[in-house]
Amino acid sequence: MGKRVAVVLAGCGVFDGSEIHEASAVLVHLSRGGASVKMYAPNVDQMHVVDHLKGAPTEEKRNVLVESARLARGEIQDLSQLDVKELDAVIFPGGFGVAKNLCTWAVQGKDCSVNEQVKATLQAFHSAGKPIGLCCISPVLAAKVFPGCEITVGHDKDERAPDVPGTAEAITQLGCKHICKNVSETHVDDKNKIVTTCAFMCKAPLHEIFDGIGAMVKDVLKLA
Amino acid sequence: MGKRVAVVLAGCGVFDGSEIHEASAVLVHLSRGGASVKMYAPNVDQMHVVDHLKGAPTEEKRNVLVESARLARGEIQDLSQLDVKELDAVIFPGGFGVAKNLCTWAVQGKDCSVNEQVKATLQAFHSAGKPIGLCCISPVLAAKVFPGCEITVGHDKDERAPDVPGTAEAITQLGCKHICKNVSETHVDDKNKIVTTCAFMCKAPLHEIFDGIGAMVKDVLKLA
Repeated sequence: MGKRVAVVLAGCGVFDGSEIHEASAVLVHLSRGGASVKMYAPNVDQMHVVDHLKGAPTEEKRNVLVESARLARGEIQDLSQLDVKELDAVIFPGGFGVAKNLCTWAVQGKDCSVNEQVKATLQAFHSAGKPIGLCCISPVLAAKVFPGCEITVGHDKDERAPDVPGTAEAITQLGCKHICKNVSETHVDDKNKIVTTCAFMCKAPLHEIFDGIGAMVKDVLKLA
Repeated sequence: MGKRVAVVLAGCGVFDGSEIHEASAVLVHLSRGGASVKMYAPNVDQMHVVDHLKGAPTEEKRNVLVESARLARGEIQDLSQLDVKELDAVIFPGGFGVAKNLCTWAVQGKDCSVNEQVKATLQAFHSAGKPIGLCCISPVLAAKVFPGCEITVGHDKDERAPDVPGTAEAITQLGCKHICKNVSETHVDDKNKIVTTCAFMCKAPLHEIFDGIGAMVKDVLKLA
């Protein structure tokens, strides 16, 4: 029987929601792996709405669950409905929405708070010994909820801004171990059953990002 | 040198814009094929905005170019800027946005009108002997602009509504030839250099839709 996998979304669009191509890649690879998928998102307002053409915030209000439903073609539930007993694994695609709507990393970095339902979801899978897959910026959720875990967000220095103290440094300050990996690679923290890959945190052609996410999904299904 | 391919979007979300997974699949396969991609969308209001959770229209207004920028991660231009001389091929992913924002098929069927810029774009590639790739519902654009062409939208009867006169019938009434194909297959109209595949018009697992779009992209790049 196929594995039952939850995918948790954070909106729809790289700058204020889930990164669309990461989310789509997760779903394609889960489909190929024979998994049955249930999608979830928290029923909360987005931190803000970004005009993706201008790259600037607007005055609009949008809801994370409603916008995530675009990625899910309508087949999505409120994250409060997630029951870990009915599921074998959980995956969080990346995108700024993770750092804005699922936690406050975009504003507060390592001092962020994590949405209570997101935190409870992560803890429930972890306690049940069920694997957690994360990509791009979403590994910071694990760094915050599971101090001491091992994760990757790609390289120690963000190649797009090498002089700025980066995500990897903040992860280390939280007491976690950052493992450098290329876009095609995953890191598997066997003890915590956490699988991470860098996806768009690395500058790479889209098909390499797609394949790296495929490796992450494969590792998650293996552990499930 | 890689082929230069235009991808024309119609918003972001299956019910009022471009089908997200089709658009993402097109981009992944173009990346793997070594193509350089430029994305475009018309700078017009969406016909309407659909709440994808409820499946019902809302009172909101959204712009096709601005919402398409979510799929393009900001890297997109007004369709009026497209210069066919700088490009080797064009691809239109599907989704209801094609039938609502790029033409009026969703309301008027075969009696629809096609957005002037969309029509001019299709005619420019056709006149230059450059290939056009279409999937899902977007082949109706070719049916309307190039009477007599050969295209597929999957099966003659829509398996989700077998008793309703379907898209294939309307295409035939426009003087075009509808070719039945499965989700993994494309139809290539060699005379018109039009490549079509059914994508989400067929009920199939997501990875099969992804692969069918891959076959379409491959055929387009071969003709370019």
